[in-house]
Amino acid sequence: MEVKVVKNILEANEVIASQSRTLFAEKGIYVLNLMGSPGAGKTTLLEQAIEHLKDKNRIAVIEGDIATSRDAERIAHHAIPAVQINTGGACHLDGNMVRGVLKEFDLNQIDLLIVENVGNLVCPAEFNIGENDKVMIISVTEGDDKPQKYPLMFQVSTVLLLNKIDLLPYLDFDMERFQGDALKVNPRLKIMAISCKTGEGLDTWFEWIKDKVSTKDR
Amino acid sequence: MEVKVVKNILEANEVIASQSRTLFAEKGIYVLNLMGSPGAGKTTLLEQAIEHLKDKNRIAVIEGDIATSRDAERIAHHAIPAVQINTGGACHLDGNMVRGVLKEFDLNQIDLLIVENVGNLVCPAEFNIGENDKVMIISVTEGDDKPQKYPLMFQVSTVLLLNKIDLLPYLDFDMERFQGDALKVNPRLKIMAISCKTGEGLDTWFEWIKDKVSTKDR
Repeated sequence: MEVKVVKNILEANEVIASQSRTLFAEKGIYVLNLMGSPGAGKTTLLEQAIEHLKDKNRIAVIEGDIATSRDAERIAHHAIPAVQINTGGACHLDGNMVRGVLKEFDLNQIDLLIVENVGNLVCPAEFNIGENDKVMIISVTEGDDKPQKYPLMFQVSTVLLLNKIDLLPYLDFDMERFQGDALKVNPRLKIMAISCKTGEGLDTWFEWIKDKVSTKDR
Repeated sequence: MEVKVVKNILEANEVIASQSRTLFAEKGIYVLNLMGSPGAGKTTLLEQAIEHLKDKNRIAVIEGDIATSRDAERIAHHAIPAVQINTGGACHLDGNMVRGVLKEFDLNQIDLLIVENVGNLVCPAEFNIGENDKVMIISVTEGDDKPQKYPLMFQVSTVLLLNKIDLLPYLDFDMERFQGDALKVNPRLKIMAISCKTGEGLDTWFEWIKDKVSTKDR
């Protein structure tokens, strides 16, 4: 019985998400759904991407959080349109929540919409929001055993950003095991090792976004 | 409509959780629900608690994970009864899942049952499982802004274990801000700073459990 409820919610979500997807395609907006645990570094990554990309791309951001508008305020300092969704108790964004705030933007003035999901390595992976790609960020401090334990997030993501590699000298993190397990779960996953603190690896990630925004073949 | 579904699920859960709570009280078992993000250090903490406490306490463990039985295998190496719940897609344990595996244990031979929840800083906080106390573990690498952004977990917990303090020299983590914000959300929260790597602070935590297990006033 409970499973049925969940299935219906997911089906209803899919209808709304594909309406949004059609709208984004009409407006020529590339949409990225950024997911990861609390503290993985989502907002910091986003701030750095904005600084690097905003001169040549018209960027907008939707921030998802249980509570507070702190992240949207951080983003708004970069002088780009940002809207905060507070989910109340919900541990993920869904298609309806994202759809509901689109009226806050002028969609004709956006090339790249980045949606920062609620900090959670589980549920956000289940709910499409109309994005072109899902990108997950995970920090090396979370441990090298995560691909097998939280497989869905790895399966649905196009890119995996492995963050905080500046901390590797102080951790027991088996890079080979982590990458091997991640690719077993999703052989097409693009893995990029980065540090938002030192800037290492970020250029590869910025280039990937630029390619996606400029190409018509999404 | 959706809210109503969620409310009914929570009410049904509460009925089952309080049946379990009554059963645990009859058997004299102290039950602890251990929650935190993926990679916060739940299983490592649990292994160290088991090694420290198992001579004088009869311990059993329930492991919650989306997939794999890796954590229960880690626990079983310590020669105590351990059962793995694989939730499939679900991002938290609920009262029914825990109730369903109790038949795997001899409840007359247990003083302390520790339930390690699915790695998630959000949903596990919503579902009682019949525990006496909820304990959350968060690592300093997750950032000092978490109490305001994920308030429910902090509100429902009796103890907050702040883990990986050995990494503090390499991070920008404002301890005063974190503790202040956590206590604003829950003034009765007991905060213990620990490192499972160096052992710092663990004695305070072990003593807290021992007191709970031995006292009748829970």
